[in-house]
Order: sequence, then C-alpha cells, then structure tokens
Amino acid sequence: MWIESAQNPKIKNLLKVREKSRERKKQGVFLVEGIQENQMAMNSGLEVQEFFVCDEIFNEKLNLDNYKTYKLSSSLFEKIAYRGTTGGVLGLYKSKNNDLEELKLPENPLVMIIEAVEKPGNLGAVLRTCDGAGVDLLIVCDPLVDFYNPNVIRSSVGTVFTNQVVSAGKEEVLNWLRKHQIQIISTFLREDTQSLYEVNLKKPSAIILGTEAFGLSDFWADNSDILIKIPMKGKVNSLNVSNAAAICIYEALRQRN
Amino acid sequence: MWIESAQNPKIKNLLKVREKSRERKKQGVFLVEGIQENQMAMNSGLEVQEFFVCDEIFNEKLNLDNYKTYKLSSSLFEKIAYRGTTGGVLGLYKSKNNDLEELKLPENPLVMIIEAVEKPGNLGAVLRTCDGAGVDLLIVCDPLVDFYNPNVIRSSVGTVFTNQVVSAGKEEVLNWLRKHQIQIISTFLREDTQSLYEVNLKKPSAIILGTEAFGLSDFWADNSDILIKIPMKGKVNSLNVSNAAAICIYEALRQRN
Repeated sequence: MWIESAQNPKIKNLLKVREKSRERKKQGVFLVEGIQENQMAMNSGLEVQEFFVCDEIFNEKLNLDNYKTYKLSSSLFEKIAYRGTTGGVLGLYKSKNNDLEELKLPENPLVMIIEAVEKPGNLGAVLRTCDGAGVDLLIVCDPLVDFYNPNVIRSSVGTVFTNQVVSAGKEEVLNWLRKHQIQIISTFLREDTQSLYEVNLKKPSAIILGTEAFGLSDFWADNSDILIKIPMKGKVNSLNVSNAAAICIYEALRQRN
Repeated sequence: MWIESAQNPKIKNLLKVREKSRERKKQGVFLVEGIQENQMAMNSGLEVQEFFVCDEIFNEKLNLDNYKTYKLSSSLFEKIAYRGTTGGVLGLYKSKNNDLEELKLPENPLVMIIEAVEKPGNLGAVLRTCDGAGVDLLIVCDPLVDFYNPNVIRSSVGTVFTNQVVSAGKEEVLNWLRKHQIQIISTFLREDTQSLYEVNLKKPSAIILGTEAFGLSDFWADNSDILIKIPMKGKVNSLNVSNAAAICIYEALRQRN
C-alpha cells in the first residue's frame, strides 16, 4: 500500500513516535531504522506492528513477506528517517517492558547498572560494550532517556535488542540485588574505596556507575558492598560514563576468563 | 572595551573560527569556552590572543588582568557560546602544532594512536581517558576532525590541553615509532591476532585503533608487530571507538602498575 502525503495520519504519527519519549510510552510502540537493526529487533522476538519501505533504497535483504508494509516515496521516507543510509526500511514495533522478576540470569551473573544516564550516545555505547563482553543484564536506574530513543538504538547498533535490559527504580533494584545475593560494587570516592583492580569480580556482581553530571548518588554509596575507583593519574577526575563502564565491564570479563 | 553589535567584525570572525576547521587552520587560532577549560588552556602554556566576557555570567574565578578583554551583552555572548553554562568567558588562543620530533617521552612510553577519527565526541572521550590513565602521547593519524574543534574541547573537558597530542600522516608516524623502538600493536582481526589480555604491554608500546566506520587500514595491519583483539562474546563485532580505546589503555595501565 502506498502512502503519498506527508499529511497522512500514519506519517504524522511516526514523526511523533520518533521524537517523543512520551508518545512512545503512551502508544507502547517505537521505531527502528536500518536493515541490521530491524533484523536484530525481529530476531529478538519483538512484535512487529508494520513496516515502511522506500523501494528506491530498500535492497530486500530483510524478509517482510508476512508483515503489513507501506511504501513511501524517497522524499517522504527521508522526512521520517534520521539517516539517508538506513537501508530504506523503518519498522514500527510494540514496546516490551522487561520486569526484573521475570528475567533469566545465569548462575554467576554480571550485571551493569547505570544511574539516570542522560545522553543517548552514552547509553548506546554502553549497550554495545555489554553485548561485546557478554554482560547478563543492563539496568538503567531512574532513566532520563528511554531504550527506544532512536539515537540509543542507532548508537547501540541494535544491541539494545540483543542485551537483556531493564529500567527500574533504585529501591526495586536494590531489593532485587539483595534477593539474588549479587554483590553491589559502586564507583564512588570515599576513604574505603578500593582500586577496580583489587576487587574480586568473579563472584555474582553488579557494577554501578553514576550520572554524567553528578556521579553516583548517596543511595548507592550507602547501599554498596564494595566501593571502587578507576585509577586516575591525570588532571581531571572523571571519565566519559561509557568509557568508565567499558573499563569496569572488561576488567570483570578479564578476571572471569 | 564593549562590543555591542553582532555585526562587529570580531564577532563575525569568532563565529567563523568556532564553526570552521579551515578558518582555525588559516588564522592559526581557536576558541575555548568555559572557566575550567580556559584555566587548563592557560596552564598548559598556550598563548592567549584575547578574551570575550559576559559580565552578567562571568564569576571572575579566572584572572584575566593581563589580557586584552572585550565585554559582551548576554544576548551577544549567547550567540557565540555553544552552551549557556560556559561561565561567561570565551578565550581566543593561538594554535600550537606539535611536531613528533620535538615531543618529550619518558623511558617506557605508552602511546595511543587513532586513525582518522571522525566524531568529535569520540575524540574528546579518548582524550579524557588518556589523561586519566596517564598516556604519554595521543596521535591522530590523518585526522578528519581537528583537536581544536569546539566539541572536541568540550567533550575532552579540557584534557586536550593537558595531554600531549599530535596529528600526523601515517608514514611519518610509522618512521617515528620505528626510530624510538616502540612496539606497534594494532587492533585488527587476522589469523595471528591475539587477545588483548595475552599481550605484554609493559614494554614501550603504541596501541592503534581504526576508524568508526571502516576499522583499521591495511597500512597499519601490515606494519604492526602484534595484532590484538578485544574479546567479543555478543552479536555485534565492534565497539564504540572510544570504549575500545578505554579498554586497551586501562589494560596497559593495569599491567604496568
């Protein structure tokens, strides 16, 4: 079925869903651009609502036979797609809200927790690193950006669909960690803070990082089993949050292998 | 001295310098926003040309007594500053082009090299990590973004001024590394690639990462002493370039401590 006009209600709604976290939540849907990203979303078992395709770009590497598909002109497609090189396909999916209680964890889990991350690019990069290192679960506590933000999906190169991800309030997360006897390791500077490299990460562990702007909240500092720091030898006293996450995550992987 | 009009040639020029790498190169100057960033630029010995201050925001934590300073209204200041919260001060500095041959290196140097990095935010994050880990030198080979791009300065939180940084062509860099007997370790997948964690990084080492889009070029793969990979256990086969850099840099720091 062809859509010709930018005034078509479906097109207007796609733009809303793309731009506004509130609309994504209200409607329970989100938008995915790109062949690889859509392939990963479909493989992860997410429910497709419909596809929007630009025949002039789409290379049919993605099999859409069984789905409702609308065709758009390239000028209309470009209005909705963030990038020109998205493979000519946009998928609209039903959101899936993971519940901490329903997650599957291995015997010796490695969990990454980030507080209130704000920049989609940082969250995307952390997701990519969690995929790379085989982190079992990424929790975002009290998030300011949702996992289905188009820039998160893009900068995660689709790993937002391959990782186990949850957003939840800090009290709920704390109770869940205690219940599952996962040691809570927070990046926070205090007298008793240890170097990352002195800490045993082979046990069931959750590593917690604070926000870009304010670092870790007192809540997590007060409720941690171990406080760690990444050694800092320079003039400034913090790293980009996704770089800090990468250093901690891969140190855990190194110890566990 | 007051500047009132956005049509003032100095103001027009500041906007050019801010926006265009070409203008920065042609004029040999660049612009720094923010108290901390200007403090770090001044401390690093860079030559100040002049300052632009908005009295309504500036808190005078920076001593500008000995410099030519222009005063701007807040509306004019906001036109030039990227961020509202820049402390009300913009510094114009003379560029300094470091020459590989003139650099000071310790006995057992750790050098980070990135090919043709494109995104200012990635370069800024790498600079921050180099500062954190005490990397002795960051080289950008055949760069697509210059160190004095405002977004690089900002995302580096001023560490572009505290690190030793050089941009240079790959042949020049290779000759320099050979001359200084620094082992060349490249992130590149081939049959003989080893895990990052199996490699001895305690010796004089340069770690080389490829671009965001295309990975490492054959030039470096062909001219390396050791090829390494970061273990990847997930669905995608690469990390954000600044995260990959952080993992390698801090593994070197861990081995060396």
